[in-house]
Amino acid sequence: MQYNIIAIGSELTLGLSVNTNAPFIAKRLGQEGYSCNYQVSVPDNIKLISKAIGKSLEEADGVIITGGLGPTLDDLTRDAICDAIGCKLEYQPWLAEIIKERYGSRSTPLPEITYRQAYMPSGARPIIPTIGSAPGIILEMEGKFVISLPGVPREMKEMVETEVVPWLNKRYLINEAFRIRVLRTTARTEASLQNSVKDIMDSLENVTVGIIASPGEIQLQLLARGQSEAEAEASIKNAEARFVERLGPIIFGFDDETLEEVVGRLLKQHGLTLSLAESCTGGLTSKKITDVPGSSDYFLGGVVSYSNDAKVNLLNVSEQTLVRQGAVSAATALAMAVGVRGKFGSDVGLAITGIAGPTGGTLDKPVGLIYIALSHESISYSNKFVFFGSRDIIRLKSANAALDMLRYHILDNLKSAGGDVS
Amino acid sequence: MQYNIIAIGSELTLGLSVNTNAPFIAKRLGQEGYSCNYQVSVPDNIKLISKAIGKSLEEADGVIITGGLGPTLDDLTRDAICDAIGCKLEYQPWLAEIIKERYGSRSTPLPEITYRQAYMPSGARPIIPTIGSAPGIILEMEGKFVISLPGVPREMKEMVETEVVPWLNKRYLINEAFRIRVLRTTARTEASLQNSVKDIMDSLENVTVGIIASPGEIQLQLLARGQSEAEAEASIKNAEARFVERLGPIIFGFDDETLEEVVGRLLKQHGLTLSLAESCTGGLTSKKITDVPGSSDYFLGGVVSYSNDAKVNLLNVSEQTLVRQGAVSAATALAMAVGVRGKFGSDVGLAITGIAGPTGGTLDKPVGLIYIALSHESISYSNKFVFFGSRDIIRLKSANAALDMLRYHILDNLKSAGGDVS
Repeated sequence: MQYNIIAIGSELTLGLSVNTNAPFIAKRLGQEGYSCNYQVSVPDNIKLISKAIGKSLEEADGVIITGGLGPTLDDLTRDAICDAIGCKLEYQPWLAEIIKERYGSRSTPLPEITYRQAYMPSGARPIIPTIGSAPGIILEMEGKFVISLPGVPREMKEMVETEVVPWLNKRYLINEAFRIRVLRTTARTEASLQNSVKDIMDSLENVTVGIIASPGEIQLQLLARGQSEAEAEASIKNAEARFVERLGPIIFGFDDETLEEVVGRLLKQHGLTLSLAESCTGGLTSKKITDVPGSSDYFLGGVVSYSNDAKVNLLNVSEQTLVRQGAVSAATALAMAVGVRGKFGSDVGLAITGIAGPTGGTLDKPVGLIYIALSHESISYSNKFVFFGSRDIIRLKSANAALDMLRYHILDNLKSAGGDVS
Repeated sequence: MQYNIIAIGSELTLGLSVNTNAPFIAKRLGQEGYSCNYQVSVPDNIKLISKAIGKSLEEADGVIITGGLGPTLDDLTRDAICDAIGCKLEYQPWLAEIIKERYGSRSTPLPEITYRQAYMPSGARPIIPTIGSAPGIILEMEGKFVISLPGVPREMKEMVETEVVPWLNKRYLINEAFRIRVLRTTARTEASLQNSVKDIMDSLENVTVGIIASPGEIQLQLLARGQSEAEAEASIKNAEARFVERLGPIIFGFDDETLEEVVGRLLKQHGLTLSLAESCTGGLTSKKITDVPGSSDYFLGGVVSYSNDAKVNLLNVSEQTLVRQGAVSAATALAMAVGVRGKFGSDVGLAITGIAGPTGGTLDKPVGLIYIALSHESISYSNKFVFFGSRDIIRLKSANAALDMLRYHILDNLKSAGGDVS
């Protein structure tokens, strides 16, 4: 089964919004073995939407549409589906009742326009929304299908999980099995990573490998195909093992696992608590750490010491250090790490100070210069980094570098303690 | 001139990465008046890429491709262009020299594979990279064009700005003028916003309006067309004025202006300094505030008081308040705001405490319950919110609500002081 994804919305073709729905669907259905031919974004124009649907039905077995199911006048997907396959919209009073109930819990009066959502193409199977108010649509004709989902990511995801995947799996029997595995690394460059694993990449059968870079992280994306689930699983396990053996701790995690989740897991595993002192990253590292549910088990808190006064008053950095070495220096980073650890009474203190730009750089201390310090038991040390890129990218790389420094610290400590790294 | 965008990369069609390049290009070229037909993502497969290029050249005046220009073996765009239009790749020694120079500043030895980037389709005009190492391609034949850019966003953006826009503007004379204007609001729901401006939307000529929701923000996206720049400008100014008059301060900003930029501008304008105490948002609000270059002018810093001890020790919240009212309460939020303001000596203290979930909710205090408090001069007050959604969404809505509360506080204070709101 081959399908296309059509994302509806002028905000997409005008470039005002980023299409995150298509990647979600492609990835989720990819895990079930369904392969997406292509993804296309189309503006809120009934003729263009209709044309895109018609073309997809010619070329593929089906099409999954997101967006344009809302109540407002620029929501045209329902009409476009009818135009493309030659059917009519029919009012469904029972659907209107459900929509009314959905809005009922809110105190605002229900605009008449909302009932546009109670119309369905004739013969369509509606998907009742469990969140939001837009019903989805499953339509089957002449061996092909049209599935239409809301554009709001939460609502779309819910329907993919509870309705679309089961419906597709019932309708199609899969002959080929797939496995996807993502190895996430803190390698420095794409080329250096490729260079160190090129022989493995060339020797793999039934496994394609992509190398993808983003700020602070480079991924190896593995896709295995096989005649059976077991065969695909064996191929991907073998490939993974070879990369892991070669690359070692440069690989920090797998699949959706983030660096902050891995660091959190390591802290928890060793019963360590953490506090953070951030200057140039301005709270980004704390934000990342606390993105992880349950992070209150090991994260006590942090100080964003954006001003020099805050470094002195809240972190006990000495004025002398600030004057002699400067706010961006190894000495200040160390004093911040020791200071925040003392203030919160945590096992580990981690501190970041630097120049994120775009202004504030000098010849001696250019934009991108970052010091990261770690304080734990009787040890304190700092590392110096120079990152390139925009303010956002420098901040992101700095936060990731701090998390990675903490990860290596725990892994190394662990080794010497004879613990188990897993 | 009508063009398509093709984004290359199996990571896109597999859903492992989100395509942010296509929206950037569509938006940037939209500002110049060029309209994008559709955007398509294609895997790293030479036949599929070639087919997509061929199809675009049939349907449109040109195609802009991103990705697949790197040095690694899955970078196939150069070959696919040749396949699609029937030309050959030619080695360009001078390009090899430039690539060598680019890498020269790094200490790692240069892998042989890097020189794949020195090949160009015959007749192509190379775009020399000023950042990164991948040269772009501009190719013209039979009145149509193929432009190929790197997939790394920074490198792509640089080339769009310095090469693609000037080249297109030289080649095409624009007959129609466009203007895009985005009005950014903190309205509660899409339907309520549409309801309050529907009559304006219906009465506008030459201006299309889209309503787009994201967590904590709803946008009105205006697109005006005219025979001349002046006409399009007049249409969009008129439309904007009518929405602004109707909606008032619900509109917080325009175009790319973020809530944190607006709040920063207001703070600066009134010579106010700010400090933040965050519990459930874990540093996200500080991160947002410091996303803005120059925020050190008004932002002194913050405390992420994730644990109760931190609330007591760093923010002087009384243990009694924590025990009697709980960490998630109006009283604790108020004490945090007053405490952080005292600690940093800032004019305004802003505090957030709540339950971001997914666990930690009770019948009395459900997931999504958030208290936000503000302390300024002799006034302190707190607001209660209940937000729905995932942990990420609740945190984002909370941070935005805090920024918006501060925005209204300054606007209201200003009014009574007879100041100028602009």
